[in-house]
This record gives sequence, structure tokens and C-alpha cells, in this order.
Amino acid sequence: MTDAATAPEPGTVYLVGSGPGDPELLTVKAKRLLERADVVLHDRLPGPKILEGLSADRCEDVGKRGGGERTPQPEINERLVELAREGNSIVRLKGGDSFVFGRGGEEAEFLAAHGVPFEIVPGVTSATAAPAVAGIPVTHREHTSSISIVTGHEDPTKPESAVDWEALAAVGGTIVVLMGVRRLPDYTGALLEAGMAPETPVALVERATWPNQQVAAGTLETIVDARDEVGIEPPAVTVVGEVAATRATVLEFLANETANEATAADEEV
Amino acid sequence: MTDAATAPEPGTVYLVGSGPGDPELLTVKAKRLLERADVVLHDRLPGPKILEGLSADRCEDVGKRGGGERTPQPEINERLVELAREGNSIVRLKGGDSFVFGRGGEEAEFLAAHGVPFEIVPGVTSATAAPAVAGIPVTHREHTSSISIVTGHEDPTKPESAVDWEALAAVGGTIVVLMGVRRLPDYTGALLEAGMAPETPVALVERATWPNQQVAAGTLETIVDARDEVGIEPPAVTVVGEVAATRATVLEFLANETANEATAADEEV
Ligand SMILES: C[S@@+](CC[C@H](N)C(=O)[O-])C[C@H]1O[C@@H](n2cnc3c(N)ncnc32)[C@H](O)[C@@H]1O
Ligand SMILES: C[S@@+](CC[C@H](N)C(=O)[O-])C[C@H]1O[C@@H](n2cnc3c(N)ncnc32)[C@H](O)[C@@H]1O
Repeated sequence: MTDAATAPEPGTVYLVGSGPGDPELLTVKAKRLLERADVVLHDRLPGPKILEGLSADRCEDVGKRGGGERTPQPEINERLVELAREGNSIVRLKGGDSFVFGRGGEEAEFLAAHGVPFEIVPGVTSATAAPAVAGIPVTHREHTSSISIVTGHEDPTKPESAVDWEALAAVGGTIVVLMGVRRLPDYTGALLEAGMAPETPVALVERATWPNQQVAAGTLETIVDARDEVGIEPPAVTVVGEVAATRATVLEFLANETANEATAADEEV
Repeated sequence: MTDAATAPEPGTVYLVGSGPGDPELLTVKAKRLLERADVVLHDRLPGPKILEGLSADRCEDVGKRGGGERTPQPEINERLVELAREGNSIVRLKGGDSFVFGRGGEEAEFLAAHGVPFEIVPGVTSATAAPAVAGIPVTHREHTSSISIVTGHEDPTKPESAVDWEALAAVGGTIVVLMGVRRLPDYTGALLEAGMAPETPVALVERATWPNQQVAAGTLETIVDARDEVGIEPPAVTVVGEVAATRATVLEFLANETANEATAADEEV
């Protein structure tokens, strides 16, 4: 694992997913590349434990700049090309999987267009892992033949902006919403309006596998209150569907559970 | 990583996803547990490279039995309980992620009901990784605010058997079909009937990250022919949506590509 043959290539960008945050949920390949790349470009989503494990002198935080705003994507793209042309091996580290609402596709296309070699290193996406560690299988033989993963925070500059919640309700499987803490009332409302049963189980999983993971559980009708009671903040994943009730049946065996969850809304599932 | 504190617990079942097949896409945790568990229960989906890496004397293949049929799930459940009660640490290894069409939910519920401690170890699902390594981001800021992951091989014993392809078409994002090689004509037909454009890009990715990965690319209209030309067999993932066209723009940089793909259907994307 540490022979020259597997060293990161100079001048190459590795588009690496970090998984949800537990350093042990890095892939073996991500870990190797993080240990050996010349530069690591990251934001905060890989979580405190993974970021603490990186050597600071090789890191560039492109998540926030001085004023607290995010580094614009075009600047990140340019920086990747620049660093590669200087002969560095570069890890572009994203939370979860780079290609699941992580803009990895845009980065890959930009690098290809500029003739910069890159490699895609898939990671464990929070869309499946956050529910899983909270005891929620996104599929279940008895309940679901589909999972839909959607964003709860639409790009307002996109012409066809809205997620079609009515169509999603019609699909009838598990719905996993990323970036959906603040607009929870909007889309639970939309799903109810589309005819989903008010007692449909819903769970919110915040900072899955981070030291301060939190879960709120309820139904389409009660989840907004449960969110506020537990104090769920981003980053969190919302799971809507019968599978969310599985949590109650396996709760006593789950790792990573904090006092919050046991006391707040679990009984509502 | 090899201290006693992190040794697998006797009497505990670890529900572990293997990722798509490249041993470097195992999580650090999966690797540790595989190296140290007393017993590993697996089928063939983790792929030849991961399975070759396991020590045969600790492995039980529950994928096929004598006649070639699969070990029934209830038998696997019972075996897990039996091994745990004998005091073994057990890895139940599934391809991809155990909770994405992997029956991990049923196993977790069965273990909980029998008082057997277990832990969920998320993996990299083929639903995102197979497209990714073929140069296809399942989301793209310009094209998609949703991904739907569905099965192309319905459980015929399930009352509400059919995936609602019409509703999926209405959702309008990326559609990823697992277990969908044989019924490709049926559901591409259904999607066309539901009004999706015949020129919608489609790709099939077989044995992603295995030594003999193959890709076929085309459109809703041409993909069945492309499948047959390349000779795609299970396990493979189908990706339907604009994102499938990204492959063409990044193709020259992809690892794992074989002669097959370059010659067969790529020009069709
Ligand atoms: C821009 S998206 C990136 C998703 C990421 N690429 C992935 O595959 O997980 C950010 C959203 O991911 C989700 N997320 C990422 N990491 C998470 C974690 N550890 N726990 C819960 N949600 C997480 C949250 O919904 C957050 O708003
Ligand atoms: C029973 S499902 C299990 C899915 C698995 N739990 C996962 O998360 O990837 C089996 C299907 O997974 C897909 N699959 C699993 N590994 C794959 C790989 N390496 N390449 C392509 N498809 C794969 C295929 O669609 C296959 O028919």
C-alpha cells in the first residue's frame, strides 16, 4: 500500500469522496491518497475527525473565504488546473461521494477540457449512510422498490428549478432529501398535498457518524416539531417512507446514539 | 488499527458493504473487520478481487448452494444468529452497500429480534460508483435535482409489484436501475411510452471496478442493441438521463476501460 507504484501521480487530480465523516468510512484508496497527495482541497463537509487527520500544511480550505462565503466553483476549478500544472498530486476531497450533489461532474468536465488528468474515487454517500447508521435501510423488500435522492435546497438560478414533489410522491418509494433542513416544512407540506399519508414515517439524521450525531424521528405531520425539539441543523439528511420506522425496531443496537435522540422524538415513529 | 480496542466483538454481526469490487474501495473499517472477524458470510457480488483476498477457512459462501440456487434468506438469518451465539465475530459481507437492495434491513431486524448485537457498516453502493467510474456523475447541476434508484427485477411475490416507470419519467432526474440487464427492453419501452425523449442518453456499466469492467452507451432507443453488441451481462447498472452523456466528454481520462468499450457503442452517446 505504500510502494511507489501506488503513489499519487504528479499533475493528477483525484476527485475523492470522504464518506459521511467517520475516518474509518474513508475508502482504503481515499486514505492512501490523503496521506500522500501534495495538496488537499476541501471544505468542511468531510467533518471534524477526517479534517483533523490531515496535515495542515498540505491543505487548502476552499469551503469558506474571509467573509464566510463559499469559494466560487469557477475559482476552485482554476485552482485545480493551476496546482496540477505545477506538478502537484492533488486530492479534491468532498463529503460523501463527489458525484452525489457534490459538483464532481463539473470538475471532471473542466479538468478534461483543460487536459488535466484526473481520477474518480467513489465514496460512501451520506444519502445512504446517514439513514443506515440511524437504523434505516433505504430499501426494504417489503416496502420499497425505489429510492429517490433529491435536493431540498434548489438552485434558484436553474430554469426548471422545482423538484417535482408530486411526481416523487407518485413514485411511492423511499425519498431521501439532502440540504433539506430549512425547507422541511415546504416539502413535507408538498408531499402531504400530493396525497401521501400524514402518518408516513420521517427521520432526520444530522452529522451522521460525526461525534455529535443527532436524529429526530416523526411523521410527515410531526417531523417539523421533532426537528425543532431536537434542534437539528445542517448538515442533515431527511428520510421519508415506511423504512424510517425500521429505526424503532433496531434502536437499542445502534452505535453513535446520543442522549438527545432517545429522549426527543423517537417514540413518535 | 490493530489494537485490541478495535478488534471485532465476539458474538457480534457486522453488516458490511464491500463497495463495487475494487479492494481499495472497501472502507477502512470493512477491511479491518474482514481481516479480523472469525467468520465471513458472503455471496459472489463483492467480486473476485475482494473474495480472493479473504482467507478461505473463515469464509462461508451463502450465495449459491449445490444446485446453483441461492441460500434462502431465512437460512442466512438463522446462520447469523447461530454463529453469533457460538461467540464468533461475524462479517456479513454484501456487494455495494448492505442497505441498498441488499436485504440488510431484514437482517438487522432479525438480529435485533433475536437479541444478537450487530453493527451497520455502510459501503460504497454500485448505484453511484458504477456510473462514477464510467465517467457519469449521477447528479449534475445543470441537468438534475434528483436521482432515483430502482430495481429492474421486481419481486413477483410482492403485491404492489411494478415499479411505476411513468411516475419515474415524470420526476425527470437521473434513473439508476439495478438488476436491470434482462428487462432492459421492458423498462426502456415503458419510459419511452411515458413520454421520455428517444434520444435520452443511457449507459450500462457491468462489473464496475472488477478486472473485466464493460460499458455500453446509447440512448433510450439504441441501448438494447448496444447491450447486445458489447455483450453486457449481470451484474450491471443502467443509468438513464442527460448525465449519461458526460461520459463522452471525459472518456480519455477514465481508468479501468477495456478495448470493448472504445470500439462498441461509445460513439452513440
Ligand atoms: C452539497 S450536499 C453533498 C452531498 C455529498 N456529496 C454526499 O454524497 O453525501 C450536502 C448535504 O449532504 C448531506 N450530508 C453530508 N454529510 C452528511 C452527514 N455526515 N450527515 C448528514 N447529512 C450529511 C446533508 O444533507 C448536506 O446538506
Ligand atoms: C441485489 S443488488 C445489490 C446492490 C448492492 N447492495 C449495492 O449497493 O451495490 C445487485 C445489483 O447491484 C448492481 N451491482 C452490484 N455490484 C456491481 C458492480 N460492481 N458493477 C455493476 N453493477 C453492480 C447490479 O445492478 C446488480 O444486479
